Amino acid sequence: MSASEFSLIDRYFAAHDLHRPDVALGIGDDCALLVPPAGQQLVVTMDTLVADVHFFAAADPEGLGHKALAVNLSDLASMGATPAWATLALTLPKANEDWLERFCRGLFALADRYDVQLVGGDTTHGPVTTLTIQAHGFVPPGSALRRDGAQPGDGVYVTGTPGDAGLALAAAYGKALVVPEGRVYAQQRLERPEPRLAEGVALRGVASAAIDISDGLAQDLGHILERSGVGARLEVERLPLSPALAASLDWDAAIVTALASGDDYELCFTVPPERVAWLESVARGWECRCTRIGVITAEPGLRLVRADGSAFRLERLGYDHFG
Amino acid sequence: MSASEFSLIDRYFAAHDLHRPDVALGIGDDCALLVPPAGQQLVVTMDTLVADVHFFAAADPEGLGHKALAVNLSDLASMGATPAWATLALTLPKANEDWLERFCRGLFALADRYDVQLVGGDTTHGPVTTLTIQAHGFVPPGSALRRDGAQPGDGVYVTGTPGDAGLALAAAYGKALVVPEGRVYAQQRLERPEPRLAEGVALRGVASAAIDISDGLAQDLGHILERSGVGARLEVERLPLSPALAASLDWDAAIVTALASGDDYELCFTVPPERVAWLESVARGWECRCTRIGVITAEPGLRLVRADGSAFRLERLGYDHFG
Repeated sequence: MSASEFSLIDRYFAAHDLHRPDVALGIGDDCALLVPPAGQQLVVTMDTLVADVHFFAAADPEGLGHKALAVNLSDLASMGATPAWATLALTLPKANEDWLERFCRGLFALADRYDVQLVGGDTTHGPVTTLTIQAHGFVPPGSALRRDGAQPGDGVYVTGTPGDAGLALAAAYGKALVVPEGRVYAQQRLERPEPRLAEGVALRGVASAAIDISDGLAQDLGHILERSGVGARLEVERLPLSPALAASLDWDAAIVTALASGDDYELCFTVPPERVAWLESVARGWECRCTRIGVITAEPGLRLVRADGSAFRLERLGYDHFG
Repeated sequence: MSASEFSLIDRYFAAHDLHRPDVALGIGDDCALLVPPAGQQLVVTMDTLVADVHFFAAADPEGLGHKALAVNLSDLASMGATPAWATLALTLPKANEDWLERFCRGLFALADRYDVQLVGGDTTHGPVTTLTIQAHGFVPPGSALRRDGAQPGDGVYVTGTPGDAGLALAAAYGKALVVPEGRVYAQQRLERPEPRLAEGVALRGVASAAIDISDGLAQDLGHILERSGVGARLEVERLPLSPALAASLDWDAAIVTALASGDDYELCFTVPPERVAWLESVARGWECRCTRIGVITAEPGLRLVRADGSAFRLERLGYDHFG
């Protein structure tokens, strides 16, 4: 095909018919003009997905459109932000209309669900499909969930069931076999992660620190520990394993997958003892599980222990691009 | 080398010591927390540079750091915005410390000059060096320079001398020979474009429409015409040619280069007759030239005419990624 860059942009991105009242000028000029709500902090995050690094080049474009936005909304969720706008930098080897149409379907389905308007971006030619999205949201001043607020004695919690995306990835690489009844579920968890936005907003004023576990639970919890100047003791038996993960791997391998495989977009957060009852109350309304998995300690470092108090050994904490 | 992604980010990006008071939380968490000034519109733009598409993979990384930010600041300039924050998505085949150090030197030198703080981003591994920057700035409500405000009778203006970057590019591809005394100049114009930020701010309330001519003067002016529902008549003899361009190419080729080569980060803008005196007054203080090159017409389309009134033929309007 030979559609020009500009008609492509017009047809696929500007056609999205969600129009927020706080967008004074969207796609179609040098810049977008936006009206941040008075008295709120602006929360921004940017994540890149590269073909054959973060996703298979042949992956379903609809899932990819969903995931490229979801991983960014997950970062907003981890700060307790309400999402508003997105921008997209899309580098493509060729202008494939079918691919674009399906990519947009996945992207806009998720965007519409959370009232997120695509307000700008850049479409370029390049040898490798590369997707960068910036998501923008708001929080009331002082209420953002940060990495640096955990205190000794705080409980450590996780949403959902970490490790499912890692299981699907291991299966894709031929390193694991998923039980037949868990295959669709694990694949969905890898390709269609659900950003925990409602949960993030609910944790404002409740959690002392939060992060999304995109690089693996152990590694991302490590960022909270480092920023907060504390340690943590995790009881590995408490880790919430999905039926698919528990049935597909032996117990030790399932625990390692839940702790270190990455590509989960769940929230890991800490809650002071005096707010645990509050958490239990708000979490009752969540669609996902909320599980206490350990406690913050004054002694630095992450200690993984079994029910009998013996250490659980983990060779690799999570995903590292250049490690 | 084997530095992890996280230590790389810490060392090179978080080390930037410019700290704006409107940044509540910069690099180092899931998101940045920003405080937009009350009563201003937020202006955002995103541009991607891909190795061997937008720059030579072996290009000087310091120049690349400059240019990756400059092309975005140029978009802010074209809207009349004051810059504030930037985010960077950097995809690299390998974590080369020397490359990163030089890239950061170029990026931060320009950022510091315009009080722009790098507040976040994403560093990823991938086969092709790909740079996406989002720049954020502000304008008072209603004062942004848009593409859609040109009216018949408005003068058409351009800053600086378009075509210099195109000349340097043509030389790099062996398609042109730059006169010796113009080589450093042309190369600088290609590698170190100067965003016209002060000029953009000065054009608030003066220009009826504006755009930056990153894809070529004729093509980008075409966007103003299309959005404004008007046409234009350009007198090609009025085009301001640099001495390097005028001395290196024959006259027709120089005009084509000035009109259609792209990678110039000058502003093209329109000014109603009653504000021309005002423009002349503000432009006296500019470091760059400001030249009237034509007039907006009610009849749609772009007409290029020579001094004798005959048509000047242009086969290609500018750069198109998928054309």
